[in-house]
Amino acid sequence: MQYVKIKDAIVEQIDSGMLTPRQKLPAERKLAESFDTTRVTLREALSLLESEGRIYREDRRGWFISPEPLRYDPTQTLNFTNMAKSQNRTPKTELLSAKAMLATKQAAELLHLPPFSDIYRVDRVRYLEDRPVVFVTNFIRTEPFANLLDFDMANSSLTDIYRDEYGVTYSKVKYRVSTTSLLGDIAQALRATSGTPAMMVERINYNQHGELIDCDIEYWRHDAINIESIAQLD
Amino acid sequence: MQYVKIKDAIVEQIDSGMLTPRQKLPAERKLAESFDTTRVTLREALSLLESEGRIYREDRRGWFISPEPLRYDPTQTLNFTNMAKSQNRTPKTELLSAKAMLATKQAAELLHLPPFSDIYRVDRVRYLEDRPVVFVTNFIRTEPFANLLDFDMANSSLTDIYRDEYGVTYSKVKYRVSTTSLLGDIAQALRATSGTPAMMVERINYNQHGELIDCDIEYWRHDAINIESIAQLD
Repeated sequence: MQYVKIKDAIVEQIDSGMLTPRQKLPAERKLAESFDTTRVTLREALSLLESEGRIYREDRRGWFISPEPLRYDPTQTLNFTNMAKSQNRTPKTELLSAKAMLATKQAAELLHLPPFSDIYRVDRVRYLEDRPVVFVTNFIRTEPFANLLDFDMANSSLTDIYRDEYGVTYSKVKYRVSTTSLLGDIAQALRATSGTPAMMVERINYNQHGELIDCDIEYWRHDAINIESIAQLD
Repeated sequence: MQYVKIKDAIVEQIDSGMLTPRQKLPAERKLAESFDTTRVTLREALSLLESEGRIYREDRRGWFISPEPLRYDPTQTLNFTNMAKSQNRTPKTELLSAKAMLATKQAAELLHLPPFSDIYRVDRVRYLEDRPVVFVTNFIRTEPFANLLDFDMANSSLTDIYRDEYGVTYSKVKYRVSTTSLLGDIAQALRATSGTPAMMVERINYNQHGELIDCDIEYWRHDAINIESIAQLD
């Protein structure tokens, strides 16, 4: 199939270093011309490259070469900033909102609370090298964290605030990884077009006494993350 | 956007039980008529449902409602058949080929062997309720498993043969999960059209003495699997 050949040609250019991470691809019209193909076939090749995580699209800006994915180990202490720095990446976090509210059905289920309990909800977008890669929503139980919203969530990690202000650390995490797509506000915050493939990581976190304290729902640009871990088997 | 509304309407029909797992959707033309929309818009809705793992396409057969995904814990003893049965699923394994060969570059890297070492390669397709859901390639070191090909791989699991015939068990696994798409032979074996979204699980497995014994590369229909686990943090 012709579009697979075009895809392979572009992969070769990426692997050889002729195309470098975050570089913008030429316009589709020009690319179609240079491969002597139709726009339809070119788009099939681009779509395949996207699903293989080699390129990504920013809404109204075009196609770009994907950087290396972040290696993400859900069994290690969970802090985006430290994880990114340890891999020589440049992290940034944008706080979208932090508020107290009544638990939605989803939040109540995840936190094992009766409906309409008080919870905190924190929404953030995290960046690598100024590219938005993950939209994170935390739902947090209120009783272990009185006055949590008084702290500076724009500049401190939740794990730091938990530890330094409340003496709470994560000791156990249940996680689930599935694939989905980006839509609506989440797509927009990640500069993605609706329907862009995504990896969803849901985590439920327990403190050092085994009590459920918060959960988070992460929508990752699927090309930006590789889940990697080591397990000792029973 | 209209296609999101159509997607939501179909999700509602699935969640309410009006559409049941493995049920075939009506032809695209009929669906477009019943939603009073164009084929183009309908296809956008179907594509979104596919990326959210709610429906899947079989090549030349049409669209089907996705069953519940299999819960897959990479930190537990790794045997597809037992995992499926414990979740009340009906597993089946088809052996495509089992042979001795010289290691390819990829296999040599994964197994930490010099290029052109002898290895075994085993290709299998695994089914749930007669639907092919994962294409698995094992690369296996030869020295711990003399005459491995003499055993009945069509009807025994590799883990059973390792344990019963060689006294070898898995004790540690390194795994990586990423997203990609199905192409060529692999797509065909899973009855998928080229470019179908996939979840790739790569595992490197160690025996009870910490020695690397084999690796496997799994291409999953992305809607057929949820990675789920519990981790104790350090």
